[in-house]
Amino acid sequence: MSHSSPTLAPSPTLSLATLNGASEDGFISLLDGVYEHSPWIAQRAFAVRPAGGFASLAALKHAMATVVREAALDEQLGLIRAHPELAGKAMVAKSLTAESTNEQSQAGLTNCTPEEFARLQQLNADYNARFGWPFILAVRGPRGDGLSRRQIIDTFARRLNGHPDIERAECLRNIHRIAEIRLNDKFGNTSDVVPTLGNQVWDWAESLARFSDPGFAENGQLTVLYLTEAHRAVAAQLADWMRECGFDEVGIDAVGNVVGVYHGELQDQHDQQDGPADEPPRLLTGSHYDTVRNGGKYDGRLGILVPMACVRELKRQGRRLKHGIEVIGFSEEEGQRYKATFLGSSALVGRFDPAWLDQADADGVVLRDLMREAGLPGTMAAIQALKRDPARYLGFIEVHIEQGPVLNELDLPLGIVTSINGSLRYVGEVRGLASHAGTTPMDRRRDAAAAVAELILYVEERAGAVPEVVGTVGQLQVPNGSINVIPGRCRFSLDLRATTDAARDALDADVRARLAEICERRGVTFTLERTEAAAAAPSDAAWQARWESAVAALGLPVHRMPSGAGHDAMKLHQAMPQAMLFQRGLNLGISHNPLEAISNDDTELCAQAFLALLDRL
Amino acid sequence: MSHSSPTLAPSPTLSLATLNGASEDGFISLLDGVYEHSPWIAQRAFAVRPAGGFASLAALKHAMATVVREAALDEQLGLIRAHPELAGKAMVAKSLTAESTNEQSQAGLTNCTPEEFARLQQLNADYNARFGWPFILAVRGPRGDGLSRRQIIDTFARRLNGHPDIERAECLRNIHRIAEIRLNDKFGNTSDVVPTLGNQVWDWAESLARFSDPGFAENGQLTVLYLTEAHRAVAAQLADWMRECGFDEVGIDAVGNVVGVYHGELQDQHDQQDGPADEPPRLLTGSHYDTVRNGGKYDGRLGILVPMACVRELKRQGRRLKHGIEVIGFSEEEGQRYKATFLGSSALVGRFDPAWLDQADADGVVLRDLMREAGLPGTMAAIQALKRDPARYLGFIEVHIEQGPVLNELDLPLGIVTSINGSLRYVGEVRGLASHAGTTPMDRRRDAAAAVAELILYVEERAGAVPEVVGTVGQLQVPNGSINVIPGRCRFSLDLRATTDAARDALDADVRARLAEICERRGVTFTLERTEAAAAAPSDAAWQARWESAVAALGLPVHRMPSGAGHDAMKLHQAMPQAMLFQRGLNLGISHNPLEAISNDDTELCAQAFLALLDRL
Repeated sequence: MSHSSPTLAPSPTLSLATLNGASEDGFISLLDGVYEHSPWIAQRAFAVRPAGGFASLAALKHAMATVVREAALDEQLGLIRAHPELAGKAMVAKSLTAESTNEQSQAGLTNCTPEEFARLQQLNADYNARFGWPFILAVRGPRGDGLSRRQIIDTFARRLNGHPDIERAECLRNIHRIAEIRLNDKFGNTSDVVPTLGNQVWDWAESLARFSDPGFAENGQLTVLYLTEAHRAVAAQLADWMRECGFDEVGIDAVGNVVGVYHGELQDQHDQQDGPADEPPRLLTGSHYDTVRNGGKYDGRLGILVPMACVRELKRQGRRLKHGIEVIGFSEEEGQRYKATFLGSSALVGRFDPAWLDQADADGVVLRDLMREAGLPGTMAAIQALKRDPARYLGFIEVHIEQGPVLNELDLPLGIVTSINGSLRYVGEVRGLASHAGTTPMDRRRDAAAAVAELILYVEERAGAVPEVVGTVGQLQVPNGSINVIPGRCRFSLDLRATTDAARDALDADVRARLAEICERRGVTFTLERTEAAAAAPSDAAWQARWESAVAALGLPVHRMPSGAGHDAMKLHQAMPQAMLFQRGLNLGISHNPLEAISNDDTELCAQAFLALLDRL
Repeated sequence: MSHSSPTLAPSPTLSLATLNGASEDGFISLLDGVYEHSPWIAQRAFAVRPAGGFASLAALKHAMATVVREAALDEQLGLIRAHPELAGKAMVAKSLTAESTNEQSQAGLTNCTPEEFARLQQLNADYNARFGWPFILAVRGPRGDGLSRRQIIDTFARRLNGHPDIERAECLRNIHRIAEIRLNDKFGNTSDVVPTLGNQVWDWAESLARFSDPGFAENGQLTVLYLTEAHRAVAAQLADWMRECGFDEVGIDAVGNVVGVYHGELQDQHDQQDGPADEPPRLLTGSHYDTVRNGGKYDGRLGILVPMACVRELKRQGRRLKHGIEVIGFSEEEGQRYKATFLGSSALVGRFDPAWLDQADADGVVLRDLMREAGLPGTMAAIQALKRDPARYLGFIEVHIEQGPVLNELDLPLGIVTSINGSLRYVGEVRGLASHAGTTPMDRRRDAAAAVAELILYVEERAGAVPEVVGTVGQLQVPNGSINVIPGRCRFSLDLRATTDAARDALDADVRARLAEICERRGVTFTLERTEAAAAAPSDAAWQARWESAVAALGLPVHRMPSGAGHDAMKLHQAMPQAMLFQRGLNLGISHNPLEAISNDDTELCAQAFLALLDRL
């Protein structure tokens, strides 16, 4: 939980200039109470401050988080243990009155019922018994306006099951979030720390999540498959918001993409003057608004909403850029309803396969019919007309939640994508000989599962040996396995990815050779069916550099990383230069899961980076 | 398939004396045609013949099979390739007329339909493409009276999927069976090679298999669960047959065991004279007649039918032994219907748990009610009355199909059990962190399946390091695994067995310590629940020695081996000395499976060993 330190007295609003101008003692004193009873954090951050001081509040936050991440285990545990226990805090919370500047007051722990209080006490006891330190949760939450008692208790119960290493790191990250909110409060009266755009995006994403497909909506799960009622409602909502933001043209195209254009200077003059003018090439950006089944609120949508917030801000400032901005909410990327992915972005690059129109979903609904029922033409002519002329575009950029743990672990809000990984997928089966677990001597076995076990460990070792690749056996099953029968069959899947096609293919060749060697040596056989192959999509150097400058301008370290997941940018890559920006996911970076989360502060930084990139065009 | 060699001319009946008295050339000549175009087999068998010649036809068969097993790979393949192809033989078979002494004539390949012939040709082509040698099947089959065309085609199709090493060995074993039948034919007019008792047991087992539980019977599957209609029919049939065999007392007891007693000399006189006489202690023997679901015809039942055939033979000869023989068909051993095993033998040693009577099966049928409905008392008093007084018994012996590959691989019909393994069983789950297969770097994973993969390979290595133990992970599953998600959970089972409790416990301690080490190192957690523990039951030295003498008396090597599976003898072990004899299972020793099989010749040897043991009491 978060904590209001007794030593954190209300202070006059702090500025970065004051902080950067302070002596070591002054610096530590000014940051007193940001981290609970741990002046060593401010002290070490002071020691590593840049020559000109911290360029931004984000830079300061990152510096302090880095100090903690690099501290000794004892120091980290000391920081955690400096915090009082949640159940005790609930007691205190009962007697607190609301104070708008105190994060504890918004903790949701006031007015616990006796049952909730008892449950908290039990969780607290279990947690202490398991980990030996107090449970830490930033109860002001990712939006900064407070978690509900139910959210707090659910989080407590969930984290009780984690591994101690993971849970310790999660406690530290919550401490950083508490510190961030406290810092924001300290700097609170200066307009540049209010995450206006971040809050806007966060609230939009929350609002969009009210639309979910039947069967999922009832369980509070977010599922928006292609052209369902919920899907069309999301599209209509996005289009409405785009109009409210001040986009000049807004529409829904023949595959359901929501397209908004904010004109550049020239186009704007052209429209006003009604005369001929060559429009300079536009910047294309966007991401998808469909979801996986029981997915998260930000996967895809963040990359529509951030540019929308930026256009809204430009409009508010009355600014036009030289180049127009075309923001697309792609209608489909996840491949959940039909056996095709990237329905939305494929149309833009002229790769929409006509055969897709004849596909039926699990309920027998044919795609063409579905489109027509949704009011779309459902013809290839209309879809082919969506193909963009690359000459009319500067390139494609995409913002996306990382969907992985890297930025979260490095305490970095943003990362620059170097390449979208190429991938190969297989499903396979090893066949040995099912026989009696008691009566078959060890040297006479043909154990299919043991062969797959070797493969799993080889994939892990081989993929771990070079930084460019990852490899995963995600599906694993001995069909109808019995406790007393040696596995005669073992099914598995294989997912291989790499930043370059060469690295992917080398990994692939090694893994397949090893599988053959294992099976030959063990006297078992195997089948291996390739189900997917995608080429790597390296970021365009110039566009990647623009993202790097934009991030650096915020005072943040430039962290380059591959994208392990596929994105719409992969499709646009086939037509024009592209580059992506990742935003940190909370909750260990989990994605395709209701726990997927982002903070308003990170989202503000993401939007600011987007604006910075626009400024440099 | 089997083959009638063109060089195998009808010959006068051969005797062992003639063969043992022959010169090397004569020996080879007399055995000409037993193995196809491969005089080297007889030649090498001659070279290793015992000083006094081969003690039995079984000894000769084993010697020749050993020559082949120890031959070079090229020689083995040469022997296989010396056989013509099945499809070609089917052509020949079409033109053959029935000859009673020719095994080909009973091959079932006469009168193929055009469809069957086409199917055989396709299988033949596929088989050749896969293995590069002709398919070999002893088409006279395990009873010697011929497989049906359907059985031949099904076997062909099944073996097409095997590993080349396994399939090559299976071809050689079929060649040995062909040779055995040819040798039997050569020796055919001498009464000692007609497997009278073996055929009797084989036919009884086949006949018993006509009773199967509803839902399985319709699919031709053998399933006989405790006290079902089929189960009661089997009991009644066994009792009828016991009476026909000449047992003096036959009955079905309070737990459904079928009990037959063949009196010894003294008891027989006592009955005739109606005077007082102390009965010498009886020999107790038997096995179970229930089956697993979709099981085999011999698991358990062989150990009832072999003693029955022996008593029938004694009765036919008008012989009484000094000691009475009590043969028990145990009603339940497999633990398929209720959460209890050994219902039958537990009653005999006073270990029938009263709580079992209150158990309900999957359909809610309470055991006590089921017993009463079946005409049994259903009271503990009646069950407790079944407890045997060990002082009135010499000991317990049990014949059982091996249910494993060892004897089959060693070309041995019989093996002597040294100990019934002690066992421990667990079900467990490793919990890591489910995360995105593309976005999670290799060094940041908590892959539950990789942890279990390490465990599987450790169990294999540790159990393989000493001869006394086996260890198996039979169940393995990543629940709801996705191709692109790192396994967050992986379920597994663990089955550990050893010939001694000390070896079992050492294995257990090592495996559990390794699991803990793996999970600690990988930062994942695990649960492990013990579901079963059974102590080892070493054979009684004197009784084991009696089995060894009996097997040696047949001219067969004495092969000692542990029993990896549990048997009724494990229960009787708690009350009296016990020892078991194993008979080879065909089809790689597969059990708990409809492919479970025995040959009539092996069964004859088993019955002869049983008689030899009785002779030595």
